[in-house]
Amino acid sequence: MNSVRVVCHQLAPRIGDAEYNRTLSAEAIRSAAALGAQVVVLPELTQSGYVFTDTQEALRVSEPLDGPTLTLWKTLANSLNIIVVAGFCERLTATQVANSAALIEPHGRLTVYRKAHLWDRETLIFTPGTEPPPVVDTAVGRIAVMICYDLELPEWVRLAALAGADLLCAPVNWPDGPRPAGERPAEIVRVQANAAVNRLFIAACDRHGEERGVNWVGGSVIVDADGYPLAGAVSHQQEQRLVADLPLAHARDKFISAHNHVHQDRRPQLY
Amino acid sequence: MNSVRVVCHQLAPRIGDAEYNRTLSAEAIRSAAALGAQVVVLPELTQSGYVFTDTQEALRVSEPLDGPTLTLWKTLANSLNIIVVAGFCERLTATQVANSAALIEPHGRLTVYRKAHLWDRETLIFTPGTEPPPVVDTAVGRIAVMICYDLELPEWVRLAALAGADLLCAPVNWPDGPRPAGERPAEIVRVQANAAVNRLFIAACDRHGEERGVNWVGGSVIVDADGYPLAGAVSHQQEQRLVADLPLAHARDKFISAHNHVHQDRRPQLY
Repeated sequence: MNSVRVVCHQLAPRIGDAEYNRTLSAEAIRSAAALGAQVVVLPELTQSGYVFTDTQEALRVSEPLDGPTLTLWKTLANSLNIIVVAGFCERLTATQVANSAALIEPHGRLTVYRKAHLWDRETLIFTPGTEPPPVVDTAVGRIAVMICYDLELPEWVRLAALAGADLLCAPVNWPDGPRPAGERPAEIVRVQANAAVNRLFIAACDRHGEERGVNWVGGSVIVDADGYPLAGAVSHQQEQRLVADLPLAHARDKFISAHNHVHQDRRPQLY
Repeated sequence: MNSVRVVCHQLAPRIGDAEYNRTLSAEAIRSAAALGAQVVVLPELTQSGYVFTDTQEALRVSEPLDGPTLTLWKTLANSLNIIVVAGFCERLTATQVANSAALIEPHGRLTVYRKAHLWDRETLIFTPGTEPPPVVDTAVGRIAVMICYDLELPEWVRLAALAGADLLCAPVNWPDGPRPAGERPAEIVRVQANAAVNRLFIAACDRHGEERGVNWVGGSVIVDADGYPLAGAVSHQQEQRLVADLPLAHARDKFISAHNHVHQDRRPQLY
């Protein structure tokens, strides 16, 4: 396994404007490919924006799996030979939407994950997922996908890690909030800890751009299998593009001392 | 529930010298009480030192629950009206020792926890515990105890939190290792994340003082229920005494948004 170049492109979708967001996402995917990225991660709900008033509004911008946005992303993944991980508002039925993320491989395979742990008013708008985070054996390594608040449930990251993930790609929209001066945002700290206790890489792509009164941490980060940042990890409330070359083979070595293995040391009969 | 004053006293035990370590620990407990502490936390294996060659050496310094060190700590807890949490090398049988921690309340109740996840060569020396971390309903709040590497298993902290812990006291001996310049030690980052995802306070007391070639992070830290440090949180390889007043009632409120509760949001049927 060689190093894999991953880009997180922190951008600002417009609420309800799928056409604008398609253009924005296409530019981001093209620019990542131009940088030699093999994987590009875009924010949660890149296709739709985030701060919906209600399910009706989300339904209007939602798309099925063969809608224009995923179709475009598939075309780009294929023509640019890049893996795309990005969030979209998925139309499930005439009355139901999910906060979903697509993992699209160059050869056309589409894997969809539906956010299982919903944040705040999302609980009033989206239908939660009922499936564990997928772990996809891609040409560059095993990639897991989950979304934003899912990362605050260590059980969820553990599931993906136990299923063999080398790299966890997480589209996020982290609403900003107060924190002590000089402290790294807690969202990033949790990403670091999740990576370290599982020895996997994590690329979390946040957004920027105030939306209906909500601001965002702007805390996109790529961390190594020890949990230390390789790129990002500050609150930067503007567009930013993180680039990191990840030696994913490190995630296959779960030993952290001569006698300790982060997964074999678990004692599930006691949990 | 009023604020509770907690002291972590980072000190340097001497390997195999229980008498010296008793004096050292007694001074630390007295000085914490003089500061008005209601809880004092001392490092892992305070009574014995850490870097044992083999079980035989550990056995020689080990003590049963009615040995001189716990007897002294009980006397001090009672006379100074303070809760003592500290690590000791426990004699289990004529051939077995445990890496244990005592939680001693002023009225005399002794709770013993035996480290369940052993680090590196500890696996060759100690018998691992088989019981979950205790959560003790003390006069100042519900206090859980675990030891060092246990903190790297998010499942273990979750158990204590689900059992109602307000404050987790963790004697640790964190062996030092390399990390990127400017980065907070990963051990501390994991403590922060554990606190935040469970909304409980954590007081982790590390040691200092090179022992048989091993140095220590010296990273004692007290974090709040949001996971932000109230004291410590740097690598300081000298004696230090952290003092913090903890509003433990905050740990009883597990809501982090109008619709999110860190424990009720779990979906155990999926884990």
